[in-house]
Amino acid sequence: MWGAECKTGGMGVVTDRRRVVRVRDRARSERPDTLAVEEPLMVRLVGPGARAAAPLPLGRVVPVGGVPADGAAPEAQSAGTTLTVTMRTPGDDFDLVAGWLVSEGAVAAPDDIAAMRLCPDEDNTVEVALARGVEPPRQRAFATTSACGVCGSDTAVEVRAALRWPVTGDPVTVGAEVITSLPDRLRERQRAFERTGGLHAAGLFTADGEPLYVREDVGRHNAVDKVVGAALRDGALPAAGTILQVSGRASFELVQKAARAGIPVLSAISAPSTLAVDLADECGLTLLGFVRGDSMNVYSRADRVL
Amino acid sequence: MWGAECKTGGMGVVTDRRRVVRVRDRARSERPDTLAVEEPLMVRLVGPGARAAAPLPLGRVVPVGGVPADGAAPEAQSAGTTLTVTMRTPGDDFDLVAGWLVSEGAVAAPDDIAAMRLCPDEDNTVEVALARGVEPPRQRAFATTSACGVCGSDTAVEVRAALRWPVTGDPVTVGAEVITSLPDRLRERQRAFERTGGLHAAGLFTADGEPLYVREDVGRHNAVDKVVGAALRDGALPAAGTILQVSGRASFELVQKAARAGIPVLSAISAPSTLAVDLADECGLTLLGFVRGDSMNVYSRADRVL
Repeated sequence: MWGAECKTGGMGVVTDRRRVVRVRDRARSERPDTLAVEEPLMVRLVGPGARAAAPLPLGRVVPVGGVPADGAAPEAQSAGTTLTVTMRTPGDDFDLVAGWLVSEGAVAAPDDIAAMRLCPDEDNTVEVALARGVEPPRQRAFATTSACGVCGSDTAVEVRAALRWPVTGDPVTVGAEVITSLPDRLRERQRAFERTGGLHAAGLFTADGEPLYVREDVGRHNAVDKVVGAALRDGALPAAGTILQVSGRASFELVQKAARAGIPVLSAISAPSTLAVDLADECGLTLLGFVRGDSMNVYSRADRVL
Repeated sequence: MWGAECKTGGMGVVTDRRRVVRVRDRARSERPDTLAVEEPLMVRLVGPGARAAAPLPLGRVVPVGGVPADGAAPEAQSAGTTLTVTMRTPGDDFDLVAGWLVSEGAVAAPDDIAAMRLCPDEDNTVEVALARGVEPPRQRAFATTSACGVCGSDTAVEVRAALRWPVTGDPVTVGAEVITSLPDRLRERQRAFERTGGLHAAGLFTADGEPLYVREDVGRHNAVDKVVGAALRDGALPAAGTILQVSGRASFELVQKAARAGIPVLSAISAPSTLAVDLADECGLTLLGFVRGDSMNVYSRADRVL
């Protein structure tokens, strides 16, 4: 069960106001300004099936924040182990956590998460219990690879090898005119961006360009995690045949998130990095960049673009 | 001594080429495209003063990647402890690591770093030894604060309390016309952005608008860390009387980085978040957003803008 309060983890306060001094043409005026809310979210792992905080199976979990796994402080033992702290825009917090667990390779089905709840004692903390047999994520997948040295191509090969749902064989094809329509379709649904100018967005679309999930967040990775988490909750993973449209650039991490959710096409408004292209190539994922007006760049698997 | 090879940590390959299919007006063409390079960088802590890898004082360091501090695998023991892995654009890697150590609150003077070197065996790994008495950073400063719950205002108060160089009293004043000139001055120096469209930039400027350091990176946090690290190397921290101009938005983390380097003014081309404004307000830092054309928003300490 995903939380007692609601399924998504709450509406959240997405925007808030602050006083601002506006300087324009040498004139000053003071007025309220609407800003995107950024708040830390702590994700704490508690025992399988536990509704309340409970002692943990600490075997492979690395706590953030200086408490070694085997010498954990009593309060950490009793309250669970912190998996991560992320700065995010409040709202859909369960989806954010669930999507992050998918992105980290820990979770693949709704039942892999035994329970989630908002911590009753304090804001901005989600407690999550994984089903028996589900390994919690390591802190950073690619940090575990070798004692000395990391390189992009090794990383890409490892990510591909660990995919639960390889996207190479996904037969979806997408019309170029659908792809070029996605930035506007995403923008139309960015309600908070219009008011703040300060939020990234991610949207999952069908191959016909129909929106499935659109989410906003101050962090572009969080926006993608919220989309993936919503899809997980609906039993819609792997997201075969879909397109993930993002508002910014395409980094290694965004390609990794798409590939781990089984999304075969990632489209970015701005530039990709070399490692994003290399990982997409390795995973057989179609990566699109500079999708603007009626033009685009296709960096990998151009056979899916009609 | 900062590295045997060079002072900054190398030139790095900032851009690279990949084949791209360009779709425009229903026509396809294939050509090489210049992209920003993204590669992982592993930062490994080795013993104080050690030139080579050496056993570590493991007391308070939390390794990334699943190796508990007290039960470290033999190879981790001998090769040092991984402090962090970041995805970055190669080049100025020592400055990146040094600036990150400043941002994490661990380092405040060049001599706090006993030695840095590129790992001789593999690419993309920097080994750093801290001077005796210098505590290595915890993995995330704000993750250590409480057993249950985190909130933005608590976080802001804690960041301010831990500042080595409070910026509240910095008497610098900056002309509005200097501030509105900074985005163009930064852009003029973004050589790799012109070719890729895929790099963030950060620049440290005097109150007269003279550039001190400008750096580019696929990660905006990394660009700031590289600037701060370069300033540390020159003995220029705290960076009193300066302005940090960034190419994107202003998040909590960027305000934190500026405050920890003693930079009194942070200027962003795009929007700040609520928590960025709250932290700037708490720390007495001047935060500027939407610096475009001849207008800007001043979110805190507007008395420094003339």
